[in-house]
Amino acid sequence: MSIRTSVYLVGLIGASLVSAQTFQRLGTCPTLGCIFPPDQTDFLAGQLFDIRLEIHAPLNGTEASNNGVPNETFSLCIQRGKEACSDVTKYFKISNSALEKWSFSYYEDLFAKDSGTPVVVNVASKAYRALSLTKPGTYTAKLTYNGGTTTVANWLVREPVTSRRAKNVLLFIGDGMTQPMITAARLIAHKSINGKYQSLMQMDQMDNLGHQMTHSVDSFITDSANSATALYTGKKSSVNALGVYADSSKNSLDDPKVETLAELFRRRRDGGALGIVSTAFIADATPAALCSHTRDRSQYASIVTEFLNNATTVNSTLAWPTSCQMPDVLFGGGAEQFIAGSGSPGGADYYKAFQAKGYTVVNNNTALQAAGTKAKTLGIFSSKPAKWIDRHVLRDNLSGLKNSPIGDGSDATDQPGLKDMTLKAIDILQARTKNGQGWFMMSEAASIDKMMHVLDYDRALGELLELDDTIRASIAHLKAIGEYENTLIVVTADHGHGFDVFGGADTKYLAAQTDDRKKRGAVGTYAASGLSGYTVAEGSLPNNNTIVYGSEGPNFPVQWNPRYAFAAGFGANPDHRESYTLNTKGPRVPAVSSSSGYVVNPTDNTDGFNVPGTIGVDEAQGVHSLQDVSVFANGPGSEAFRGVYSSVDIFFKIADALGLAEA
Amino acid sequence: MSIRTSVYLVGLIGASLVSAQTFQRLGTCPTLGCIFPPDQTDFLAGQLFDIRLEIHAPLNGTEASNNGVPNETFSLCIQRGKEACSDVTKYFKISNSALEKWSFSYYEDLFAKDSGTPVVVNVASKAYRALSLTKPGTYTAKLTYNGGTTTVANWLVREPVTSRRAKNVLLFIGDGMTQPMITAARLIAHKSINGKYQSLMQMDQMDNLGHQMTHSVDSFITDSANSATALYTGKKSSVNALGVYADSSKNSLDDPKVETLAELFRRRRDGGALGIVSTAFIADATPAALCSHTRDRSQYASIVTEFLNNATTVNSTLAWPTSCQMPDVLFGGGAEQFIAGSGSPGGADYYKAFQAKGYTVVNNNTALQAAGTKAKTLGIFSSKPAKWIDRHVLRDNLSGLKNSPIGDGSDATDQPGLKDMTLKAIDILQARTKNGQGWFMMSEAASIDKMMHVLDYDRALGELLELDDTIRASIAHLKAIGEYENTLIVVTADHGHGFDVFGGADTKYLAAQTDDRKKRGAVGTYAASGLSGYTVAEGSLPNNNTIVYGSEGPNFPVQWNPRYAFAAGFGANPDHRESYTLNTKGPRVPAVSSSSGYVVNPTDNTDGFNVPGTIGVDEAQGVHSLQDVSVFANGPGSEAFRGVYSSVDIFFKIADALGLAEA
Repeated sequence: MSIRTSVYLVGLIGASLVSAQTFQRLGTCPTLGCIFPPDQTDFLAGQLFDIRLEIHAPLNGTEASNNGVPNETFSLCIQRGKEACSDVTKYFKISNSALEKWSFSYYEDLFAKDSGTPVVVNVASKAYRALSLTKPGTYTAKLTYNGGTTTVANWLVREPVTSRRAKNVLLFIGDGMTQPMITAARLIAHKSINGKYQSLMQMDQMDNLGHQMTHSVDSFITDSANSATALYTGKKSSVNALGVYADSSKNSLDDPKVETLAELFRRRRDGGALGIVSTAFIADATPAALCSHTRDRSQYASIVTEFLNNATTVNSTLAWPTSCQMPDVLFGGGAEQFIAGSGSPGGADYYKAFQAKGYTVVNNNTALQAAGTKAKTLGIFSSKPAKWIDRHVLRDNLSGLKNSPIGDGSDATDQPGLKDMTLKAIDILQARTKNGQGWFMMSEAASIDKMMHVLDYDRALGELLELDDTIRASIAHLKAIGEYENTLIVVTADHGHGFDVFGGADTKYLAAQTDDRKKRGAVGTYAASGLSGYTVAEGSLPNNNTIVYGSEGPNFPVQWNPRYAFAAGFGANPDHRESYTLNTKGPRVPAVSSSSGYVVNPTDNTDGFNVPGTIGVDEAQGVHSLQDVSVFANGPGSEAFRGVYSSVDIFFKIADALGLAEA
Repeated sequence: MSIRTSVYLVGLIGASLVSAQTFQRLGTCPTLGCIFPPDQTDFLAGQLFDIRLEIHAPLNGTEASNNGVPNETFSLCIQRGKEACSDVTKYFKISNSALEKWSFSYYEDLFAKDSGTPVVVNVASKAYRALSLTKPGTYTAKLTYNGGTTTVANWLVREPVTSRRAKNVLLFIGDGMTQPMITAARLIAHKSINGKYQSLMQMDQMDNLGHQMTHSVDSFITDSANSATALYTGKKSSVNALGVYADSSKNSLDDPKVETLAELFRRRRDGGALGIVSTAFIADATPAALCSHTRDRSQYASIVTEFLNNATTVNSTLAWPTSCQMPDVLFGGGAEQFIAGSGSPGGADYYKAFQAKGYTVVNNNTALQAAGTKAKTLGIFSSKPAKWIDRHVLRDNLSGLKNSPIGDGSDATDQPGLKDMTLKAIDILQARTKNGQGWFMMSEAASIDKMMHVLDYDRALGELLELDDTIRASIAHLKAIGEYENTLIVVTADHGHGFDVFGGADTKYLAAQTDDRKKRGAVGTYAASGLSGYTVAEGSLPNNNTIVYGSEGPNFPVQWNPRYAFAAGFGANPDHRESYTLNTKGPRVPAVSSSSGYVVNPTDNTDGFNVPGTIGVDEAQGVHSLQDVSVFANGPGSEAFRGVYSSVDIFFKIADALGLAEA
């Protein structure tokens, strides 16, 4: 009772409850009238977008309004600069839309959730599809409802850049990759003498450095779906949303869409080739966001359908006259969406569906390397992609996974790495581009994020070093084929994890202690952090787990499991146990489910000390963090990537380099 | 016994033990012959430095050598490029030095420490003082000992930049300030609407962005002494060392020195004014490293003596013909070194000592603002400087500290902030510079680090925001006095802490739960992180600790203790308890001593949940981390600060902007 009272008290002083809370009625909509695209949206001139309007009438709770009956006679007018405000139908010369109605519920706070007392919100809505604004300048979209209440969205159509500077764009995304991780990767893979590195990461040597702010439209921590949406569309969105703003309707495929870089490039550059490469499954958020439009990133079948067709195919009621037009290259994992079965669109064999539309399909690295460059190519190499360390250092871990991309229960032992996929993709895009329109490729090192989630620092850094090696090899390859000077190369991340190295751990001493507090004494800080144990061979050191590696040449550790390892961690953890040794059996599983939520995995790091978590016990993994991520760029247009800016600016900078705006 | 065996085994395969260990025989010296400056040292042409040679003969342990008798007939020759190698005395035209002998001991690893079995090392040594190299190019210093064994140091005298570009240099150091902290400060102090910030940090708006690698010469985690030495001398050094390389002798004041930026500026720019400002005590590492030369940063009395005099005064046996020549401005805390007593040099009244040499002395902000600009000015404002939050938001905490700078047991309630000190310092430096030589100032926000050490995130971010506000005000002031275009402004840090924000915390819900695992449910991640609660007023929200702040204007939080707070943390912690609320009584004390090491402070965050530590139980605080730190720069010469480089390059870039090299 006192809980409800306090909630009502909050309501009395206005909108403060919604300003920073755990649960929101609807992100991007602090008032009871909602406009998508919301206030503060920037557009590329000519970029397609949907408008969604919602009028909310909460039936109960601190914002209870009009007995839960939403106003149905709302209207939207659009105004450029100081011109008159015209009704949306007149402004865009479109007919009125049908009224839609639905309801949803949410909890106002954790107390309400515990007591099972949700707020019910009734909604009246309209949507207008596939619009665009071409004249640069400021716009006001004014929604009038409830007999005179207004909600205003200020939009900006940025001044179009008409001169194209880059023929090709190669966008590398290190998923979840932060500067502290890059620093740690440098530490383990590059030798230093008396504090001076003898070699550097390729990223360290890029011509231009920037930082981007990664937060969502409605939360300061983002996931990979909405951060990819920001990078590719220039619009901040909500957690789990791909190429749309998240509305409150039940249908996750009818949310207001925005046109992506890939769609714009295909629509505006006839003959431009498009490539999408990832070490994740190909329907995962970062590759998906280039071509997909859904509020729910887990709609994998829809996502694959949209790769092959377009948004209208997925939801035939919605006009969306732009698409990825079947990417020339699609390389990744995720056989589940292609093998006929419960994970594929309509249960069909989607390898065949792609072949029927002219794709060459390859399922292992040997076939990938042998494939020609003239056809569109789909490469799906596993159901669950292996990590760099397991592909290169601990190959025994490739056995028994039954992750064959053709679904025959065998192991995918011939998987290409990011470098293999990216270099081949360059060749295919080069061969397929027409009319001098060049190509656009996104290449993602996905498992930096996935391995940081499970606190598997070593595997995450292996993925990061593979990314760096891929950038290095791509630059060399572009130079060799004479395209380096024509190619804008951008390397960035979509969000962070709060990882950092804070010392060295004597793993032998740690394992030899029997008490957790004594084990912590193995962590050396400051001067006792010592030097990198990863860049020197320890040979026959009495450390059973010593793994000497060297066949990948420079830019990788000489060994991965030295006695003196780095000690690292996160502020945000599930319960786990820490020993700072390489997980030699495969990716780490830090926590397991129990009747009281996730607890330490009893088989993980059995020599280590317990570290109870700092986040909800319903979390099995670490979570994303706030920090700005780095941007590195070379090539034509790359000077624009200097300095500090929002994630959405990446879209505009790339679009400007390609001259994609309508002038 | 088995432990010793394993240690000996390590010895058999060479130098691997010393490559990454918790304890090192001597940092920078993996062989038994040591040269300081060590291999990989870069010099500014004409920069003064000492040479120290050591020959080690371990009596026992894995490197036991020559029955513990160090070779005394060692020699050093110096060679430029492919010229002949000349004996050091001939090369520099100096006489031979006297042989010195001493011994020291260390543990080879933690097992040896536990069993109390140190290695004893006997040493023979020579030193050559105050040398310099003026011809650019590569040099080889070859130490020959033990009848023919050689240790080689490769040195580089960088090509001198002869044209001076900056008249003034204003170097801001945010001690321990990382990009994740800057991101968090932006979150709490700058309002965003639908994911777009309506204002930005001043740092975000600087013209040039870079990253610097902070590690030490002999450990990958640094402290503030040796990182400041790197920034000011261009030489990586060891933990606790100021303006010297750490040798193994007992005397911490005889270690091999290197000339600092401040000394170079004074020696090479006659009439150039020098200012040192810090929110720490003025003998703390970051201000001290500009003028001091000691292996032990805790030699506070020596440090203050060196501010007023020079290194030769501190240790009269050592010629060191360069000094800070009494800085024109010295502003900070640390009354203990000035009030006659156990902390001051020789027990003397050092306020009087400074006055006797012509200094105006001020002890509070009123006197500071009233002071003229023509005299050298010493401002010591407390024995223990208060933090920004306590000076501005929670002023009750200024009472009862008995931290008066004059030592009368009263409270220092009129302390200037970083902005007050820095703006006044600019005016004094402007008034005192002669011959058109401009000025050099270092202004340090010291307590970002100090408050991150004690996990007091709010106070740390308050200090960071004060720094940003100071940079903003300094730019405005420089513009107002017509010096902005003449001034190189560099903002950076000396090292990191592995801090990051990972979500929002419903502090009210957290406090209301009685079980630690349930309390963790108050932490909202991803979408449930919500929005910044710090940029909106909650007014009469039923939160007893709500503090509404606004009188500092924009660029600071509207409130510091919202119900929906950010949740953050480190990978490296002592035992502590987390509630994500503002510590309203003063700086946080996370852990207290017990018979089993440091444990949770029972009076800290009593509503919170326990987070056992991840570092040694002898640590009462968090520790520094590895990550690269950001560099922001404006003004003449600032383009050089773009990209990724070593901390030592900051010295060279500033020296080049000032044209300090000998041509």
